[in-house]
Amino acid sequence: MIIAVIGGSHCSPEEAQMAEAVGCELAKRGATLICGGLGGVMEAACKGAASEGGGTVGILPGDQGEAANPYVQVPIPTGMGYARNVIVVKSAQAVIAIGGSYGTLSEIAHALQNGIPVIGLNTWALSIKGREDNSINPAQNPVEAVEKAFALAKPMKPQI
Amino acid sequence: MIIAVIGGSHCSPEEAQMAEAVGCELAKRGATLICGGLGGVMEAACKGAASEGGGTVGILPGDQGEAANPYVQVPIPTGMGYARNVIVVKSAQAVIAIGGSYGTLSEIAHALQNGIPVIGLNTWALSIKGREDNSINPAQNPVEAVEKAFALAKPMKPQI
Amino acid sequence: MIIAVIGGSHCSPEEAQMAEAVGCELAKRGATLICGGLGGVMEAACKGAASEGGGTVGILPGDQGEAANPYVQVPIPTGMGYARNVIVVKSAQAVIAIGGSYGTLSEIAHALQNGIPVIGLNTWALSIKGREDNSINPAQNPVEAVEKAFALAKPMKPQI
Amino acid sequence: MIIAVIGGSHCSPEEAQMAEAVGCELAKRGATLICGGLGGVMEAACKGAASEGGGTVGILPGDQGEAANPYVQVPIPTGMGYARNVIVVKSAQAVIAIGGSYGTLSEIAHALQNGIPVIGLNTWALSIKGREDNSINPAQNPVEAVEKAFALAKPMKPQI
Repeated sequence: MIIAVIGGSHCSPEEAQMAEAVGCELAKRGATLICGGLGGVMEAACKGAASEGGGTVGILPGDQGEAANPYVQVPIPTGMGYARNVIVVKSAQAVIAIGGSYGTLSEIAHALQNGIPVIGLNTWALSIKGREDNSINPAQNPVEAVEKAFALAKPMKPQI
Repeated sequence: MIIAVIGGSHCSPEEAQMAEAVGCELAKRGATLICGGLGGVMEAACKGAASEGGGTVGILPGDQGEAANPYVQVPIPTGMGYARNVIVVKSAQAVIAIGGSYGTLSEIAHALQNGIPVIGLNTWALSIKGREDNSINPAQNPVEAVEKAFALAKPMKPQI
Repeated sequence: MIIAVIGGSHCSPEEAQMAEAVGCELAKRGATLICGGLGGVMEAACKGAASEGGGTVGILPGDQGEAANPYVQVPIPTGMGYARNVIVVKSAQAVIAIGGSYGTLSEIAHALQNGIPVIGLNTWALSIKGREDNSINPAQNPVEAVEKAFALAKPMKPQI
Repeated sequence: MIIAVIGGSHCSPEEAQMAEAVGCELAKRGATLICGGLGGVMEAACKGAASEGGGTVGILPGDQGEAANPYVQVPIPTGMGYARNVIVVKSAQAVIAIGGSYGTLSEIAHALQNGIPVIGLNTWALSIKGREDNSINPAQNPVEAVEKAFALAKPMKPQI
């Protein structure tokens, strides 16, 4: 299982705590965590995953693998700036969004555009032409977010 | 002046009418219209611009310039899928969003992430953690949308 | 007709002269010139095209349209670094390579990979496993390069 | 250490044998193998790495992780077509090229453009304006290729 965790490169202490708990929970269940590779929510989630021995991949906007946070095992420097946001979500079977700003919103939108389920922890809410859009599945806490991500995850053909 | 018009590749007749009027108005004021190059809102906007002799550029998701709608003068096939959404907005000094779905939402988010003003005609509304986000500037009609786009447009160094 | 001119952002005076002559010749025949938008060969080619009233498009690696050389009419800032090289050649019906370094070589390779004819003026030569690869069509001078580009250009469905 | 193995998605039995041996050797030395994720040279290299318990990452051109060869542990579907070639090489500290066609040539060029060492096994040779270009470091066999890749690899700051 490959799950993306998205959120701001700067975040509140509460968001960092949530992200770290999400990372722990993903690793305990054997998922690989994919993210944008930088600080804030991304670093906290990778830290959590690493503490439980989980795999972490960072899809970086810049040219330098060294820009990855220290808990990224496989840094992927794309040199493509924010266009890398598309890759972060496409690589995942489900996406957990924590807080976030416009970059996170773009990732949510790309996920929904690609039919990849999005679980939200204290993040964006959407409406279009006066109607609420309920495509983001809300979760109340990190464990529920991971449970929903596993339950809704796009199936993927098993690898050998 | 380079202005992006974004919106769904399928749209309602009302949205098409708005998009065509936006295209006309942009061309009358000498702006170059940039868009995703496909049908729906994009085609209607290009049709409007072309009817007034305005320039049109289509940043296409696929490999084939022929996929552009017939009013695109300069087709740019990127072969990059929805990652091309980032380019559509980065190339513009302001963005006019008309209706739209998740692709349009991703473009709105990438524009806001890059500090490019967004004007909305009957499109997405955003809130984060219970607070409304007012970054999308609403317009009531096509002429007002174009006026706001010109008023808010990011300055760009003049070319020779 | 859309023709790409590729080559280094720094070049010799002879290369600049060739590039300018290629740009002039393309514009005289009504082609739109597409390039990477920067200096050197790209700027010289755009200057030539502009001197004859031809259209010029610059697919830029960075985020800022202002980085375009002053003869680019439509700057397309991609923010995708050298990945934009792929777009430069995909947007063209034929590619004229002048001198160049590894960036130019990557563009030649992407063009050949996409079945887009490449005409070479004093540029790379290729061999694989001891056999020469003759996919780059040599030209002796700018006019011959443009003639070959028109003769070999991938057909594209006419726009309205 | 992260090393890219590049080469055609179709290849000769000899090339497949070389690629598998390269993959084995990389895994024995603890390197993570990165590649384009598809068949041919890429699959053979991943198979070799997997047989020795090594990590494998596949940067895919399409939208579907399932397109990865069965020995890819972490599939990264980019949806960016051949623009993903840039990412394959940027993610690596050195690149081993085996045989290959124009896609491989584009990866060699992008690597050289980014200052990433390239080791060649029976692959392209380059010359520019009549002078040979010796930027591709030739190796006579898979073990020598891996030795040279480790010797020349771009340093990367250690992760925690």
